[in-house]
Amino acid sequence: MIRFESDYTEGAHPKILERLIQTNDEQTPGYGEDVHCERAAVYIRNCCGREDAAVHFLMGGTQANLTVISALLRPHQGVIASEWGHIGKHETGAIESTGHKVLPQSNSDGKVTAAQIDAACKEHKDDPDYEHIVQPGMVYISHPTENGTIYTKSELEDISASCREWGIPLFMDGARIGYGIAASARWAATGDALALPDIAALCDVFYIGGTKVGAMFGEAVVITTERYKKDFRYLMKQRGAMLAKGRILGIQFETLFEDGLYFEISDHAVVMADIIRKACAKKGYRFMYETVANQVFPIFPEHKINELRKSYAFATWGDAGEINGEKHFVVRLCTSWATKEENARKLAEDIVAI
Amino acid sequence: MIRFESDYTEGAHPKILERLIQTNDEQTPGYGEDVHCERAAVYIRNCCGREDAAVHFLMGGTQANLTVISALLRPHQGVIASEWGHIGKHETGAIESTGHKVLPQSNSDGKVTAAQIDAACKEHKDDPDYEHIVQPGMVYISHPTENGTIYTKSELEDISASCREWGIPLFMDGARIGYGIAASARWAATGDALALPDIAALCDVFYIGGTKVGAMFGEAVVITTERYKKDFRYLMKQRGAMLAKGRILGIQFETLFEDGLYFEISDHAVVMADIIRKACAKKGYRFMYETVANQVFPIFPEHKINELRKSYAFATWGDAGEINGEKHFVVRLCTSWATKEENARKLAEDIVAI
Amino acid sequence: MIRFESDYTEGAHPKILERLIQTNDEQTPGYGEDVHCERAAVYIRNCCGREDAAVHFLMGGTQANLTVISALLRPHQGVIASEWGHIGKHETGAIESTGHKVLPQSNSDGKVTAAQIDAACKEHKDDPDYEHIVQPGMVYISHPTENGTIYTKSELEDISASCREWGIPLFMDGARIGYGIAASARWAATGDALALPDIAALCDVFYIGGTKVGAMFGEAVVITTERYKKDFRYLMKQRGAMLAKGRILGIQFETLFEDGLYFEISDHAVVMADIIRKACAKKGYRFMYETVANQVFPIFPEHKINELRKSYAFATWGDAGEINGEKHFVVRLCTSWATKEENARKLAEDIVAI
Amino acid sequence: MIRFESDYTEGAHPKILERLIQTNDEQTPGYGEDVHCERAAVYIRNCCGREDAAVHFLMGGTQANLTVISALLRPHQGVIASEWGHIGKHETGAIESTGHKVLPQSNSDGKVTAAQIDAACKEHKDDPDYEHIVQPGMVYISHPTENGTIYTKSELEDISASCREWGIPLFMDGARIGYGIAASARWAATGDALALPDIAALCDVFYIGGTKVGAMFGEAVVITTERYKKDFRYLMKQRGAMLAKGRILGIQFETLFEDGLYFEISDHAVVMADIIRKACAKKGYRFMYETVANQVFPIFPEHKINELRKSYAFATWGDAGEINGEKHFVVRLCTSWATKEENARKLAEDIVAI
Repeated sequence: MIRFESDYTEGAHPKILERLIQTNDEQTPGYGEDVHCERAAVYIRNCCGREDAAVHFLMGGTQANLTVISALLRPHQGVIASEWGHIGKHETGAIESTGHKVLPQSNSDGKVTAAQIDAACKEHKDDPDYEHIVQPGMVYISHPTENGTIYTKSELEDISASCREWGIPLFMDGARIGYGIAASARWAATGDALALPDIAALCDVFYIGGTKVGAMFGEAVVITTERYKKDFRYLMKQRGAMLAKGRILGIQFETLFEDGLYFEISDHAVVMADIIRKACAKKGYRFMYETVANQVFPIFPEHKINELRKSYAFATWGDAGEINGEKHFVVRLCTSWATKEENARKLAEDIVAI
Repeated sequence: MIRFESDYTEGAHPKILERLIQTNDEQTPGYGEDVHCERAAVYIRNCCGREDAAVHFLMGGTQANLTVISALLRPHQGVIASEWGHIGKHETGAIESTGHKVLPQSNSDGKVTAAQIDAACKEHKDDPDYEHIVQPGMVYISHPTENGTIYTKSELEDISASCREWGIPLFMDGARIGYGIAASARWAATGDALALPDIAALCDVFYIGGTKVGAMFGEAVVITTERYKKDFRYLMKQRGAMLAKGRILGIQFETLFEDGLYFEISDHAVVMADIIRKACAKKGYRFMYETVANQVFPIFPEHKINELRKSYAFATWGDAGEINGEKHFVVRLCTSWATKEENARKLAEDIVAI
Repeated sequence: MIRFESDYTEGAHPKILERLIQTNDEQTPGYGEDVHCERAAVYIRNCCGREDAAVHFLMGGTQANLTVISALLRPHQGVIASEWGHIGKHETGAIESTGHKVLPQSNSDGKVTAAQIDAACKEHKDDPDYEHIVQPGMVYISHPTENGTIYTKSELEDISASCREWGIPLFMDGARIGYGIAASARWAATGDALALPDIAALCDVFYIGGTKVGAMFGEAVVITTERYKKDFRYLMKQRGAMLAKGRILGIQFETLFEDGLYFEISDHAVVMADIIRKACAKKGYRFMYETVANQVFPIFPEHKINELRKSYAFATWGDAGEINGEKHFVVRLCTSWATKEENARKLAEDIVAI
Repeated sequence: MIRFESDYTEGAHPKILERLIQTNDEQTPGYGEDVHCERAAVYIRNCCGREDAAVHFLMGGTQANLTVISALLRPHQGVIASEWGHIGKHETGAIESTGHKVLPQSNSDGKVTAAQIDAACKEHKDDPDYEHIVQPGMVYISHPTENGTIYTKSELEDISASCREWGIPLFMDGARIGYGIAASARWAATGDALALPDIAALCDVFYIGGTKVGAMFGEAVVITTERYKKDFRYLMKQRGAMLAKGRILGIQFETLFEDGLYFEISDHAVVMADIIRKACAKKGYRFMYETVANQVFPIFPEHKINELRKSYAFATWGDAGEINGEKHFVVRLCTSWATKEENARKLAEDIVAI
């Protein structure tokens, strides 16, 4: 069984394991105050073009989301997000458990638009009963989105401008940010690619996902806006998000960012996805979402799915109804830094052949 | 600088790193539903003598504490703990952040006694204003305690009996449980050693610490009482305590528990601590707490501390006042699975010599 | 200006004020443990046909909702409600502030159906990622709904059966329950009227609204299912929902329930609403929702609204688009126990005349 | 049975009931946006000498405490309070239920001192593990305290100066503030009386208690520091602390503050307490706390208590041990605006006589 069901099916990039072995006997202080965390932070600040950024290493995406969001909101505020957003759909109410409502916005491609932010804030402000309604207090977006789509630079500029106009922070969930950046670099229109420095300039807080991009686990939260930096480590500790042996996270991000490994392995994944995407297109399959990063959402007939499942693991995303008398379903095919080219090519061939 | 400041200064036991490398290319499902987690759970159930136990792998101690405690309490209930307990002192209000009060009990050695539990529950029940007061809803103990002391089997039997009489669960923080078990096996009075099956039988929930005992990170939460098992994975997910690549935790505990490595390395740490303890005693130093596990709390004169700090890192635990015209302080010397015997012997010699 | 904007524009029924004066010098214990609260509870139990019911007096609707809901749910559970439900729309995230997500159901008339409950619970159960999703833990309905509609007995029987099948409690927000009962008694099909004993039998918890039905303030929470009674007064105290001078609530509900005053004044309000409704119908206006209780939602042309606003206060509920070249809006006209018949008739005349 | 057990045993001052009757038919907007609330706010601002103060009317003390405290703190912050403070002892963990720890300070008379605030903040700042410890984020005091003692002007000046030095707000629970002000006016040393304008100048937020001082219920929260005013009504609504018929609160405070009734009836209570206090002193009884407001805490022999209980209700506050071979207890005798002089004199006589 070859797995395309998610981007966290393997362990970690071999260089990370090597480095863990090399450094294993070092004695370091705990809680992220070691030299590896410091070095990793420097590398990340450099990649972001922001020497002033605060960088913290957390263990996972849900943890990063709940820690950041509850740090930024006052009790009566909620967070604007896509109705497909991970925080609203697949975190067992983690945000609500910290006291805050998720304010979902409908959008078929999983994005939030500047117009939606404006509309939500304006509707709130204009409601005669506004004090009886949760106040929009921040915006949460994912890049790439849950639906595999990515933001362009101009889209993010508009979103950022809207947030700043309304005086609310913009937070980007970057669990798959490497794949978003790689896809953007490879395929975006001239001048519209969204690179890490752009993200750092346009968001107030975001994170660089390790779990899905080469690490065993770990997300690097980057805070670029001064007023959100204060006391963040207290909040990490309170949420159980401060690793005792913080060095384990530091070593991983040090390895990923010291010489561009993160970007290199991200690019590999999007190339692998492209192989699969092209096979689907060649065979005439339509796609649920137009994606360019590491996830492909083709609409397959049921018999095709049954055949492919003999050799491949992948997720059924939704029902696509009956087409030409046969049931069709949207499936999700996911590549990663670890996807072997031979496996991607084999799947592509089978998509075309079966 | 040789570090005796904590039991999490090194990486992980080399066998764990080896195993991570061996398994790195395996493709597994996420969120703890892989074969390594399953195997690790079987080994742990066996060591506990409880095939019915639920075993979950979380990432750290604060996270385990807040997830378990908020899972077991109703909103108006609090948790009885030693005033020295980690949850009350050093977790930035993690328990309160989930809505619950910590109900501190005073005890110089960091333990909670059955008599204190009885008294706290009785006082609550008898108060005419009991509905205006937080209801004791569970008991939290650490083994070893924050003060390095350990419970005897009969003490834990009494505590367990008290909890069951009052109808409230008993939860043991086992961040250092390996060291407690090893010390107990080595030095407890005949019949009064507290082994893992005793703990499993007497507690409703407890965890087996990995972070401080050989793993890079990770705590294995064991739930032995049926009614506390329900929906625990939902609560893990909600608190950000469900690792995407759960296998990383499974592999670590598999390695530690498949053939007794956990107990072997725990024993090493308590032997190392004993070397240091004996040196202190030989030199005539008194101890703040009578400990037998991996922590030693001698009272040193200031000049001794200054000398030792040139070569060793360790924590000052508290002020011990003036003795014979010189300031004295309690220090904490901490060994672990990773402590090199040569380093323990060197420190012992310097304690005696300086 | 005559106000039809809400059902809480006046003070309290004169009999309540009289009774407050009569009892003013009595010295009573606090916190709802006085003779008036006890008597009121007895009257309410009798009206519900449930001598075993627990009855508690709280101060307002949002308070009752957040206290009950947080008392019934475990942390990972959410509450199914209409997307129009007060808890999701107009309580500034009170439910989320206690850690729980509201799970909205779409329905044009503000009701929740048994089929929706079944579907939501089944969808959750069948989702392969169910542990990553908030678990439906209870159902919240309002009677009458926010949209002025009422449940029939058979509808509530179906809802209750569905809840019991799925093992989750049913909670009814009865802020306007008097008007629902009165309307049902007056106009429901034979055998399908929903009376207080039916509600008590079919719901696990509900409340009888005083604020909108004759009292200065106060809601009587009735718990009929044994397992939800435990420790409820602790939860009231914790949420700031236990009035020191509980007698003030007891006296009000005593007055309302000792001889049927509550039902009598509720009936008055629905008769007043009917006068207004018939005038709208006579003039040919359509209604946004088909209501029979104390709220009428006619669709008026803009010029009519402007004329009526000169003499009457009422709420604009929504935009109804352009009809015959003129803008139309849904308005809400609300009667209450305090509505003077002359005012209702005057409005009815003006609706027809203007 | 004559009740001296609390200051909330009667209904409300007759003038309040009169006013409720006079205004009963008025139609007003809800949620505190009526003319009575506005007038009451103006009267209170005048009495405080602060035209810029925000004034909000809440329903009870626990509610006011939890709403204000959770509005002012960030998630990792706690509130410094006396170990006797109501928030820590008698509110069923209401503060913890909003996510915050109460940081108790020991003091036999229920006060918090400036030195304690300094010490707590300094200890936190100096702790090497400060990020693992709840950060002191505000100070909560009661005036009078739970122990019946009152602050002098210079004490409050010191406390306020300390809070401002550490950059944390000062919040005064004024459930019995009228009695504190009256006692201070009557008996404080020249220049050291603490009047309402002093409190308004020295605290950031405080409330003027109605429940225990003439009203049926209600507390007027006064916010004098600009940055704590923002969005407070949202927080009231979220906590269930915004009364639908806000006028009921407005009318009560209007009556109490339009011409000094509040201060007049407060003075009555402290004079009544003085009668009782003098009787105790005359008879040679000692006091647990030196009080001058409306509570007296004499230490009585058991036989005396048994005799008095035949005619009077009062609370046993604590065990005072054996004196001259007889058990003694501290009791609390509480007067209020409603205490009849004949009853106070009768009790005084019986204290002396029995």
